[in-house]
Amino acid sequence: MDIETLKSAHPAHWKKAAAIRALTLDAVAGANSGHSGMPMGMADVATVLFEKHLNFDPKTPHWPDRDRFILSAGHGSMLLYSLLHLTGYADFPLEQIKNFRQWGAYTAGHPEYGHGAGVEVTTGPLGQGISNAVGFAIAEAHQRAVWGEKIVNHYTYVMAGDGCLMEGISQEAIGLAGMQELGHLIVFFDNNDITIDGHVGIADITDQAARFTASGWHVLSIDGHDPDAIDAAIIAAKADPRPSMIACKTHIALGHAAQDTSKGHGALTDPAQLTDAKQVYDWHYGPYEVPAEVKQQWEDMGTRGQNAHAAWHDRFAKLSDAKQKEFNRAYDLEAPKKLASTIRAFKKQATETLPKVATRKASENVLEVINPIMPETIGGSADLTGSNNTKSSDMGVFSPANRKGRYIHYGIREHGMAAAMNGMVLHGGVRPYGGTFMCFTDYARGAMRLSALMAVPAVYVMTHDSIGLGEDGPTHQPVEHLSMLRATPNTNVFRPADTVETAEAWELALTDTKTPSVLALSRQNLPAVRTEHKTKNLTAFGGYVLAEAEGKRSVILIATGSEVHLAMQARDALQAEGVGTRVVSMPCMELFMQQDEAYRRRVLPAGPVRVAVEAGVRQSWDMILMGERGAAKKSAFVGMDSFGASAPAEELFEKFGITAEAVATAARDLL
Amino acid sequence: MDIETLKSAHPAHWKKAAAIRALTLDAVAGANSGHSGMPMGMADVATVLFEKHLNFDPKTPHWPDRDRFILSAGHGSMLLYSLLHLTGYADFPLEQIKNFRQWGAYTAGHPEYGHGAGVEVTTGPLGQGISNAVGFAIAEAHQRAVWGEKIVNHYTYVMAGDGCLMEGISQEAIGLAGMQELGHLIVFFDNNDITIDGHVGIADITDQAARFTASGWHVLSIDGHDPDAIDAAIIAAKADPRPSMIACKTHIALGHAAQDTSKGHGALTDPAQLTDAKQVYDWHYGPYEVPAEVKQQWEDMGTRGQNAHAAWHDRFAKLSDAKQKEFNRAYDLEAPKKLASTIRAFKKQATETLPKVATRKASENVLEVINPIMPETIGGSADLTGSNNTKSSDMGVFSPANRKGRYIHYGIREHGMAAAMNGMVLHGGVRPYGGTFMCFTDYARGAMRLSALMAVPAVYVMTHDSIGLGEDGPTHQPVEHLSMLRATPNTNVFRPADTVETAEAWELALTDTKTPSVLALSRQNLPAVRTEHKTKNLTAFGGYVLAEAEGKRSVILIATGSEVHLAMQARDALQAEGVGTRVVSMPCMELFMQQDEAYRRRVLPAGPVRVAVEAGVRQSWDMILMGERGAAKKSAFVGMDSFGASAPAEELFEKFGITAEAVATAARDLL
Repeated sequence: MDIETLKSAHPAHWKKAAAIRALTLDAVAGANSGHSGMPMGMADVATVLFEKHLNFDPKTPHWPDRDRFILSAGHGSMLLYSLLHLTGYADFPLEQIKNFRQWGAYTAGHPEYGHGAGVEVTTGPLGQGISNAVGFAIAEAHQRAVWGEKIVNHYTYVMAGDGCLMEGISQEAIGLAGMQELGHLIVFFDNNDITIDGHVGIADITDQAARFTASGWHVLSIDGHDPDAIDAAIIAAKADPRPSMIACKTHIALGHAAQDTSKGHGALTDPAQLTDAKQVYDWHYGPYEVPAEVKQQWEDMGTRGQNAHAAWHDRFAKLSDAKQKEFNRAYDLEAPKKLASTIRAFKKQATETLPKVATRKASENVLEVINPIMPETIGGSADLTGSNNTKSSDMGVFSPANRKGRYIHYGIREHGMAAAMNGMVLHGGVRPYGGTFMCFTDYARGAMRLSALMAVPAVYVMTHDSIGLGEDGPTHQPVEHLSMLRATPNTNVFRPADTVETAEAWELALTDTKTPSVLALSRQNLPAVRTEHKTKNLTAFGGYVLAEAEGKRSVILIATGSEVHLAMQARDALQAEGVGTRVVSMPCMELFMQQDEAYRRRVLPAGPVRVAVEAGVRQSWDMILMGERGAAKKSAFVGMDSFGASAPAEELFEKFGITAEAVATAARDLL
Repeated sequence: MDIETLKSAHPAHWKKAAAIRALTLDAVAGANSGHSGMPMGMADVATVLFEKHLNFDPKTPHWPDRDRFILSAGHGSMLLYSLLHLTGYADFPLEQIKNFRQWGAYTAGHPEYGHGAGVEVTTGPLGQGISNAVGFAIAEAHQRAVWGEKIVNHYTYVMAGDGCLMEGISQEAIGLAGMQELGHLIVFFDNNDITIDGHVGIADITDQAARFTASGWHVLSIDGHDPDAIDAAIIAAKADPRPSMIACKTHIALGHAAQDTSKGHGALTDPAQLTDAKQVYDWHYGPYEVPAEVKQQWEDMGTRGQNAHAAWHDRFAKLSDAKQKEFNRAYDLEAPKKLASTIRAFKKQATETLPKVATRKASENVLEVINPIMPETIGGSADLTGSNNTKSSDMGVFSPANRKGRYIHYGIREHGMAAAMNGMVLHGGVRPYGGTFMCFTDYARGAMRLSALMAVPAVYVMTHDSIGLGEDGPTHQPVEHLSMLRATPNTNVFRPADTVETAEAWELALTDTKTPSVLALSRQNLPAVRTEHKTKNLTAFGGYVLAEAEGKRSVILIATGSEVHLAMQARDALQAEGVGTRVVSMPCMELFMQQDEAYRRRVLPAGPVRVAVEAGVRQSWDMILMGERGAAKKSAFVGMDSFGASAPAEELFEKFGITAEAVATAARDLL
């Protein structure tokens, strides 16, 4: 539909959509940076969606049963900010639009979750939003089954562009959503044929409609500027039991001199061209100016959602107090009161039975006691369920036939799994954890970084955390990954040494509300090192004295996970020689560095030599070994400085020199 | 086709294929670990491929015009090892099969490139092989155009499973290959309906044939056990101008009690079941035993390839000596002699003109002089050509219409790009480099780690390497990535400070034969800091004295990239106060740590306080600041300890306290 037809056939619609386009042009010009083309191209779809379908309430942005709107093509952030401003979200007054992309503004270059209310998720890294959306839709479908349609029954709408769909993660999302028949997931594909480098055809000829169809989606193709077609498509999408993809043929930077060009993707700041575009729009107002009548029309769009919210509120109020509290508890990411006592009892039993198990198995044992008392957990694995030990016996499998199931077979899709977990947390009401081999954090990195950036407490169960993986060899053996994850801000990396520490790590992971946790777990069996019951969660200190030196303290050995028992053996050898040796277990370096200095000095006093042992690279240990005020001058590290190899695990530890004897020798060499 | 039909209709074929199955069973039982099912399922396809189509020469495994065979489903490594053993590759005698998955054996858990000759690429992390294969096919198509079909004209065959096809990276590979019409790429899909967690349907319902068709592939679906169907499909695939996908319906662990189950995916070691399976195969021989007659039949399969090799050799010999040398030079990853003088001349000019440009722009300027004298370079970007500055003016764009083009529009596919680059290097004859934003190393990590593990000198052009990216905000601003990459073994991370260092980094990247290079380049303009011409490549030392202290040396400032000029300004301020201050530029920490200790001590002597400045996290700096023998006791770091923010770049450096004044203050505080 060309602009003149559109204007004459749908004058009221046109004006509302033009408000988005004009605000976008002004804000990008004001910032002298940003992306104009996408908001200008998708303004019609957004207008129809907000006017006729989306249940949203600007006065209560976080109402649980709202529809979710996810701008996967996050560079088009001015589309979202325009919508939030026009419909009257308190965090997005005109001042924010005028401060687009400036220090401290909620109107960041890309939408940032946790800044202004109304932004459902941080997007920008392409393909993430559509993959988060699968998590939103899973959380919705699951809770709908658990709580009933009167309490949970809403849609997740996504806008995605060619960039999102070319990223591999999108295939993982599409495949998972198709198999799961997530009928409340509706994706608008901004089919404008343009990417930064030029026409999309220089890099891709994929028939996206056919591709989605191949994975079980309901697909519609429409003129993305025709309001009637948009409305009809959304109606059809909502009615279909499958997830829907609506391919919207649009013109990027509609009405601007740069329309339909890759230049139109970026910042359109030329003043004359900006004026010309506004002429085309019949938009005869000053910069940032929206006529009161048009603004009112936008604000009125919230009425439907406000009514829906009120009706929902009445239905919710009919739940028993206990049920209301339980619903809200999960939404507030509040762990059940019983968690602490359950973990304590589990720990007590472990110190009585001293199981010699792999920490991945210990993790499964913990989940067997946690999952029954935390109905909000949703577990899963990227096709390594038996290896990651992520499935406890009571969960049931989430599927189209069993929406109450709490275990997800994500398939061989690490990145999609991580992004879906982010979406589930952001949706609210569920606590996802998911597993793969530690080495394949590499595949999930893009989404794991966003967990940290968004302060989303997803839990990553990363098993086979070293050369202890054995015969599968160096492609599957992490060596740099612990340091990599520790280098990432706002990420807690737990590497527990035995069953007790594993339980403590899980408790911390599931009570955290702001930080993702990575549990690095062993494939191989490990002896219990926490042999005495302590009610206190020692892992919460990050590092603590596991065994004190006898006699004069000459050596401190510091270790994590599967190497803690090596440190204990080395201590035995050293003590037998009369060398007083303390062992510090350091299951979470981040938490240790958050303790006050006095505590850190007590655990790692100056004076004794220090030897750290971990079956990974040294990088993240330098600070522990050398950097603390008053640190020992003399220190050594026993670990990896190369990739691993393919052989039985015990032989690998020997060959790479990660043994109790090597630790003891390293200490002796420093004395 | 059921087993009995197959045996009776194709007895000779059956016996050859049974040899693979029996060796697989024996080797997995011997190792007590491994994956039996895939080799047993795909043995028929492999047998037909090797017998009737694949041009290979076991006596000269690296002959340039051989067909390539890539086992993307790398866990099925015994398929590859069986094939290499049976056909007579010298590195794979029976001893190797008997040492499957043991320390030092070429028969690692997953195929490892660079160990035994005959393994074209390291596989195992799923989806990589099929994506590497796109790079192989691009390299072949390009060289075929450049050298003519008489010199380069071969096929790349891939075996991929459900795991490979569920990984997102496969979509990136499929999309790129389809658009590029890589007709010499033929993928066998092991369509056995089984993954580790169960039937594939518990996680995916994708119609893979439709999915490939949607991206422009030629697709065939066959019974993967019927030798005639396999042969006919390969003939059809070779004849089609599009890349071909042959969906082979197979039975995982064919003939074993675990056939068609997820148990069949793993290690089948039960002795009785093993015996039973061999009975089904009519294989009445001892462990590891292959009748001489069958072994001879396998060895004879190499004759076709040996003849093809000989014929190729005759054609190659007709090229002029100069052309032969040039062809071999590129295959040997040998830089042209003119590179050194070209870089020197470029550096000389830069010290005369002192351009104030971003290092990404400096990189483009370097490429403008390198690409014309290095015809083997193939550049590209993941849809950020104008931002990564990766395209020099003479390259042409590689496309179906222009196979001689040397620039690839990879699309928004960072992971696929990185994997394709690995494939190109491994194919030989080309030197790929590719660009994206530094932050999106997160998306490419899976393949970048394999560059390092395989010792493949791909070049990653990672621009926008800090908060200097500005308004796009924290999703696009790397902070942990320099440390992450430095934690990875065998990866050189270059962060040049100006045009001269950028040229030196490129020279090092393009002369390296064993280590991938990451060039971390600025978005923002930087002043020249190397103002005096030196013929020597100072970046080769990793770190060097850029400016000496005047008077008593009290302070050493160490910096990389965009922060080097801040260190220089801080030095001015400190010297003005009479504080003797040395500035060390550290463009490549890895190379610095490879220098002898005497050199490192000269550059970083004990005594002076040290301040490092880098717009990233501290982790990788601890060793430089504190760890070298005789290091200063007093040191400080100026950098990031959180994610970034969305605002103009200069403001971000101010707000996050990464300024010359902050560096000078940090030094003063230590004195």
